[in-house]
Amino acid sequence: MAKVAPLSGFPEWLPEQQLVLDEVLRRVRQSFELHGFAPLHLRSVEPLDTLLSKGADTDKEIYVLRRLHADEGDTADLGLHFDLTVPFARYVAQHQGALTFPYRRYQIQPAWRGERPQEGRYREFLQADVDIVGRDTLPVAHDVEMAGILAETLMALPIPPVTVMANNRKLIEGFYRGLGVEDVAGTLRVVDKLPKVGVDGVKKLLAHLPDGVVARILDLCTIATPDTSFVARVRALGVSHPLLDQGMDELAQVLDGNAHLPPGRLVAALHIARGLDYYTGTVYEGVMEGFEHVGAVCSGGRYDDLVDQAGGGAKFPGVGVSIGITRILGVLLPKGALTTDRSSPTCVLVALNSEEHRPAAHTLARQLRARGIAAEVASAPQKYGKQIRYAERKGIPYVWLHDAQGDGRHEVRDLRTSTQADADPQTWEPAPDRVRAHIRAT
Amino acid sequence: MAKVAPLSGFPEWLPEQQLVLDEVLRRVRQSFELHGFAPLHLRSVEPLDTLLSKGADTDKEIYVLRRLHADEGDTADLGLHFDLTVPFARYVAQHQGALTFPYRRYQIQPAWRGERPQEGRYREFLQADVDIVGRDTLPVAHDVEMAGILAETLMALPIPPVTVMANNRKLIEGFYRGLGVEDVAGTLRVVDKLPKVGVDGVKKLLAHLPDGVVARILDLCTIATPDTSFVARVRALGVSHPLLDQGMDELAQVLDGNAHLPPGRLVAALHIARGLDYYTGTVYEGVMEGFEHVGAVCSGGRYDDLVDQAGGGAKFPGVGVSIGITRILGVLLPKGALTTDRSSPTCVLVALNSEEHRPAAHTLARQLRARGIAAEVASAPQKYGKQIRYAERKGIPYVWLHDAQGDGRHEVRDLRTSTQADADPQTWEPAPDRVRAHIRAT
Repeated sequence: MAKVAPLSGFPEWLPEQQLVLDEVLRRVRQSFELHGFAPLHLRSVEPLDTLLSKGADTDKEIYVLRRLHADEGDTADLGLHFDLTVPFARYVAQHQGALTFPYRRYQIQPAWRGERPQEGRYREFLQADVDIVGRDTLPVAHDVEMAGILAETLMALPIPPVTVMANNRKLIEGFYRGLGVEDVAGTLRVVDKLPKVGVDGVKKLLAHLPDGVVARILDLCTIATPDTSFVARVRALGVSHPLLDQGMDELAQVLDGNAHLPPGRLVAALHIARGLDYYTGTVYEGVMEGFEHVGAVCSGGRYDDLVDQAGGGAKFPGVGVSIGITRILGVLLPKGALTTDRSSPTCVLVALNSEEHRPAAHTLARQLRARGIAAEVASAPQKYGKQIRYAERKGIPYVWLHDAQGDGRHEVRDLRTSTQADADPQTWEPAPDRVRAHIRAT
Repeated sequence: MAKVAPLSGFPEWLPEQQLVLDEVLRRVRQSFELHGFAPLHLRSVEPLDTLLSKGADTDKEIYVLRRLHADEGDTADLGLHFDLTVPFARYVAQHQGALTFPYRRYQIQPAWRGERPQEGRYREFLQADVDIVGRDTLPVAHDVEMAGILAETLMALPIPPVTVMANNRKLIEGFYRGLGVEDVAGTLRVVDKLPKVGVDGVKKLLAHLPDGVVARILDLCTIATPDTSFVARVRALGVSHPLLDQGMDELAQVLDGNAHLPPGRLVAALHIARGLDYYTGTVYEGVMEGFEHVGAVCSGGRYDDLVDQAGGGAKFPGVGVSIGITRILGVLLPKGALTTDRSSPTCVLVALNSEEHRPAAHTLARQLRARGIAAEVASAPQKYGKQIRYAERKGIPYVWLHDAQGDGRHEVRDLRTSTQADADPQTWEPAPDRVRAHIRAT
């Protein structure tokens, strides 16, 4: 084996870290399914033109596939998807006749971008997406619901608090139009750079607009409220436009409809724009406390026109969010901010006192598994001390000893307390908090 | 969106099919974890030379990656992995100092091969692998255990019965050497073609060997027994060699140690060789009843030398199997051999009688979710008949009606029986068999 080195941008984890990641994924899946989202896995590749037509600034980041011994003229031109939304939109268009709308699906898969790796930025990364797509129409109530789903799912994870910030593209566009700005998209792109270039940078890039207009645009960016009080603050800027009213109404619904969330989990933040072109209304973005520097750990929004069709026909408006699993774990795991007490799901190691004992040990392990208790049999009849050490090193909480004194007794050793007690294979149960690995957030 | 067509060799599923697949994966994961295997996800790519050094006949099937706007001289030369064993061996070599051996891991991920697609053969396919890897040594008891894990896991799936066939490379090699055959590998490759080219074809390809030798080789291939009686049948062929004895002993252990399995789930089948070079002892291969023509739905074996290292050092012998999830589901799902009654995990649709009712409906849904009951709120306050029809089309079993007669009552409608009864949001429970989707095998 020539190379066993890590590849920059393609993170991998040790067994105990992977158990943490799997527990996070288990909770994400559980939350999504409790909210009525059906699982979906799609192929990893799309025709290159599908990827390019949706990818605004992403064309340079796509990985293209080629068979090692491709035939002459073999130009399938497939690329690995750079997000899960574009393939999903393609899937909806492809299977529209077979789906029941509103269609609610979640999807947990990797995506790939050929970017320069850095903290929080990877070439292969796991995303957890949920979307709701309607046929022809989709009530804005689903924009409201989606903010709640996102906040509740993040709260179910053993990670630092995430603040979900919501805004609305119509609000921004209406505000700009009300100010007489013609090039809304171009202006938006400049304002999106605010965190990078600062106020002076934005002013320079918008030098073609009157100073008063630029000042109002920057004023809008400073508005962030935990409730619908942003409406009064926007009104105070003295700009009016029907689209602004619509956007403010929609954003107010998102905040009002999630009043049950704990304070700080969802805020209106009027500087949020989201780079991707396809958003048409509500937009979401979340940052993790203490890790603001790595950027958004989740994002999404409303897209009314993503699923378009060659021949016109029905529209499929949708709203969705994406949780950046690798971005979240990729900053927490290396810091040791999330740890677990195990590197194995095994709850009971069945010890071996001799080779002859092996069939009985396997029978016992099967009895435990039949009752849902994860069990493995020791690899070899080494001294008990060695077998116990194996269990300790993997964080396996119990060792089962059978006939250790030649009297046929069954005993279970609890490695946490170093105590040993008689046990009945038919009825013994592990302590409820030892059945599965614990995640510790530090 | 330019192309919404399927891509040959890249299978995708409708929501109800995906629910079947997810249930299969849930049971696979559960079985692997009950047997003490820790989850692992690895990157999808490996350096091309790693893939080529292990890939015997696979070099033409590898997908190579290239960034769309790759810079001049940008020759990372990465390829998508063609199985999960080669990346796992690389991972073990890379992290040997941090792992506790025997290391037990499972891995469920796609693999890619640029092959010509046909029934049961895909360009992107999901594999579920389990392996046990030791440091320096790994008792043959784990070969025994692995056959049982494979058979038990397959029995836990809602699929037609799979017969796991076991053989041993040492047995074959010892038999050939006992016959005086020099080119063991070349002869094995010919015999591996037996199902394709038939007895006459094999005879022709082995024309350089004496007729008596070829006859014995073919005799060995016909031996298949449900127990250790293969030993007597091999002995009756009058060939002897120490390696043959060792291989027979190991295979006999595999059969003897799994006598608890129901008849027919595990057999010794002495024609099984497995194409890949890296197997050194026990080999496994499984075929699904009624679908023998698609070939092996699972396979694996013992590999003593896969994890090798540049500078020598420790050895990491392993044994593992791979279940071809896409191959199994790819033949069963399109035939309607596995179906489910739902296209959604939602258990309760909370109906809406007006927009004003929405906050109360969401509060109710949250109450249900807090008790583990998957719930969603209707998209719009349409007529009840329309809301019920949405639930019926998705196979959602219950519709919750609140204040339907303006008297504040809570009622639950059971769509299977079309009956309606009063319900308390704090205590109501769905029928146990309606909590999750049912899989029907037909």
